[in-house]
Amino acid sequence: MKKVNIGLLGLGNVGRGVWNIVEENKDELKKRSGYEINISKILVKDIDKQREVDVPKEILTTDFNKILEDDSIDIVVEVIGGIEPSVDYMIRSMKKKKHVVTANKMAIATKGSTLLRTSREEGVMLFYEGSVGGGIPIINGLNENLVANKIEEVIGIINGTTNYILSKMTREKVSFEEALKEAQEKGYAEADPTSDVEAFDPMYKLCILSSLAFDNVVNISYIHREGITNIKPIDIEYARELGYVIKLLGIAKDVDGELELRVHPTMVPANHPLANVNDSFNAVLIKGNAVGELMLYGRGAGELPTGSAVVGDIVSILRNRDNPLYYSKFEEATIPHKIRDINKVQCEYYIRMTVKDKPGVLGEICSIFGKNNVSMLSVIQKGRREECVSLVFITHNTLEGNIRKSMDKVSLSNDVVKVENVIRIENLGLQ
Amino acid sequence: MKKVNIGLLGLGNVGRGVWNIVEENKDELKKRSGYEINISKILVKDIDKQREVDVPKEILTTDFNKILEDDSIDIVVEVIGGIEPSVDYMIRSMKKKKHVVTANKMAIATKGSTLLRTSREEGVMLFYEGSVGGGIPIINGLNENLVANKIEEVIGIINGTTNYILSKMTREKVSFEEALKEAQEKGYAEADPTSDVEAFDPMYKLCILSSLAFDNVVNISYIHREGITNIKPIDIEYARELGYVIKLLGIAKDVDGELELRVHPTMVPANHPLANVNDSFNAVLIKGNAVGELMLYGRGAGELPTGSAVVGDIVSILRNRDNPLYYSKFEEATIPHKIRDINKVQCEYYIRMTVKDKPGVLGEICSIFGKNNVSMLSVIQKGRREECVSLVFITHNTLEGNIRKSMDKVSLSNDVVKVENVIRIENLGLQ
Ligand SMILES: NC(=O)c1ccc[n+]([C@@H]2O[C@H](COP(=O)([O-])OP(=O)(O)OC[C@H]3O[C@@H](n4cnc5c(N)ncnc54)[C@H](OP(=O)(O)O)[C@@H]3O)[C@@H](O)[C@H]2O)c1
Ligand SMILES: NC(=O)c1ccc[n+]([C@@H]2O[C@H](COP(=O)([O-])OP(=O)(O)OC[C@H]3O[C@@H](n4cnc5c(N)ncnc54)[C@H](OP(=O)(O)O)[C@@H]3O)[C@@H](O)[C@H]2O)c1
Repeated sequence: MKKVNIGLLGLGNVGRGVWNIVEENKDELKKRSGYEINISKILVKDIDKQREVDVPKEILTTDFNKILEDDSIDIVVEVIGGIEPSVDYMIRSMKKKKHVVTANKMAIATKGSTLLRTSREEGVMLFYEGSVGGGIPIINGLNENLVANKIEEVIGIINGTTNYILSKMTREKVSFEEALKEAQEKGYAEADPTSDVEAFDPMYKLCILSSLAFDNVVNISYIHREGITNIKPIDIEYARELGYVIKLLGIAKDVDGELELRVHPTMVPANHPLANVNDSFNAVLIKGNAVGELMLYGRGAGELPTGSAVVGDIVSILRNRDNPLYYSKFEEATIPHKIRDINKVQCEYYIRMTVKDKPGVLGEICSIFGKNNVSMLSVIQKGRREECVSLVFITHNTLEGNIRKSMDKVSLSNDVVKVENVIRIENLGLQ
Repeated sequence: MKKVNIGLLGLGNVGRGVWNIVEENKDELKKRSGYEINISKILVKDIDKQREVDVPKEILTTDFNKILEDDSIDIVVEVIGGIEPSVDYMIRSMKKKKHVVTANKMAIATKGSTLLRTSREEGVMLFYEGSVGGGIPIINGLNENLVANKIEEVIGIINGTTNYILSKMTREKVSFEEALKEAQEKGYAEADPTSDVEAFDPMYKLCILSSLAFDNVVNISYIHREGITNIKPIDIEYARELGYVIKLLGIAKDVDGELELRVHPTMVPANHPLANVNDSFNAVLIKGNAVGELMLYGRGAGELPTGSAVVGDIVSILRNRDNPLYYSKFEEATIPHKIRDINKVQCEYYIRMTVKDKPGVLGEICSIFGKNNVSMLSVIQKGRREECVSLVFITHNTLEGNIRKSMDKVSLSNDVVKVENVIRIENLGLQ
């Protein structure tokens, strides 16, 4: 039996998952890859840290060079996270002809072109299935299975933390703050939750997915991003009454040759499969011109699901090592896509505002909308507090630019206390 | 630009899809595979047939040898169907060092070992993603993405025709016969619907999925099979009242080292994602010891979705042609799995019978169940017709053997007019 040595960079959540899977499924992995997989060195920051995993201490090191200079190590698995030193370590490993597997969405989203160019130049493989959707085979899906398609849309719930929070707010009618606190207690959210709740994490992931789906490097700066911190229980309640559920979606669409790229809270029809993806589950809907609509659903994070993707990538490398496989899509922008301006997005909108409770206010606001070509599907007036009332408008399908112009004008009115929230509605349907 | 010639065997539904995708997505395919894909010869039965596809007549042939002996053809795509002559054509093609792609579940399920052994012996690839779940990447999922997992369960809706019929019966409360008639009119069911409604088609597919999931050749004779012809609107209505939906499921589970393999109508909790897979959509739920639960959902048939899988396989071959990829799982039984006897299956059961409406009948039946260790969760008595009543029992979790023994005894009772239906209930939950 051939043997392969792996250098593991990082022994946190994902590193632990990788270690445990390689131990637990040793026999299957041998049979399926033809190799005995041996994690021979592990890079950590602190050797003496207490760890919830049974790893022989002598294989831990704090010196990356011990792994880099070890010629018996053929594959480096990077599960440290962040840009530095991770990207540097990956590049140096590839220059030493070591294949690389990573689960690092930030590195791939921001340095993907450099990393993948290096891999081709050095004749080694770089796989990153774990970087989006945990154990859901979405990267491979786009690179391999759907290769016969022109992809038209990729729409997904690709952040487990915010989905957990929104699910909890919906089910238990608690505030964002309460739901976040529980997510932190349960280990679903980090102490500093910014990356998740402000939607940076799903922005990186959408960047990767759209680069693969549309055969071109997408820069994160192209992506319109809004987090979920402004979602109130009352918005969720209105959504429910209107037949919707609020989800944080990553949306990438090819609209008339322009790419629409956005991550934001979205109202989704309650009977759509995405509406029923709860807690820390992820799901990605892909529309291709041959396959039609396809949905992949599963655990989007966690040490074992992410480890499943990472170890799957290791096996792919072993199977292809005599003839490295590259997927060029991400490597360089051939003809850069035209990016659709956010003002050109078209959908329905939910707009909630607090206004003074006096005659003529509704008329004034409606006339502002009208002048900006925004027409209304419905208006709900509810909840009186002192001299104010809450107004909710649902628009017909409208250009975002017209909504923004209207909101600028509406905000100037003395009778409008506050525009509380504007949420896009996507009337997704399965064909 | 390199060019590859393809010989297409069959120009029916799937053949048409393959042709159209290769035409329509030519540019993407070039960019992604590095090849210009050229379908240079097509085998059909009748050259003069009117076809809904714009193919130059001069490339059609009725003589397989024209393709076999053409050394410029590197890949043969078999979309004729059935065992003969398809299997023979595939084997002869491989012996001529041509790679093969097929969507033929019957051929893979029954002759998979021979076909895959030949592929390895001849050093050519044989891919068959289109054979299960149309455009859903389930074969590749098991072969590649989930390779790091011990698979515990594969449960799926893998026949579009019966799912269409059951969805229609559920939504419109029509009979099986009416729903079948409409499915035939719409082209979802064939003139002779036996293969679908008697569940042969999903049996072949489950055979393939379980062979891949459990690393061993599963023989179709191991699979317990029941079709949907006996499902009545009243069963669907009872299911609804009890919070279930009836679906035809293929189920493969590893239970204590034994394989449980069955295809039959099943009651699924109404809030489970599988319950909401309607019409001709397919979905497969996979449970792995690393990835947890994963669901793949999409169009399970149709010319373009199936063509998407077939053309995806062509690209995989082009990418790997210098170093052929084999997945050995299916090739030979290493240690044959122990197959779990159907009498050892454990679940809840729905039992509907017509009995004489007289005192003591219920007691008599309950005592038979009791003697056979079947305990009841609930009993519903409804619908009086002349001197008969309809009785519905829902059992606790029970051994199938005990159910069968009870039913044998119950049938002998003079007071029991007929045991109308016995349907297994799977209380699937997402973890
Ligand atoms: N967690 C998930 O569910 C998940 C899912 C998908 C993708 N990912 C990605 O996977 C990667 C790892 O995530 P994680 O959750 O496993 O992170 P983590 O729990 O924070 O673990 C990071 C590991 O890297 C080590 N490390 C950090 N900085 C280092 C340095 N400068 N030199 C050497 N070692 C260093 C740490 O060492 P010590 O142990 O000594 O502190 C620790 O073992 C990230 O890119 C993340 O985005 C995570
Ligand atoms: N239809 C689907 O949605 C679907 C989905 C997944 C998998 N599949 C599988 O794909 C395969 C093809 O299905 P299909 O629906 O495309 O079948 P189909 O519409 O019946 O087409 C069969 C084709 O094969 C040709 N053919 C039949 N017998 C032949 C023979 N002895 N010699 C030469 N040519 C012959 C026919 O020629 P003529 O045109 O001259 O009659 C026809 O073009 C089957 O294995 C099926 O199980 C189908």
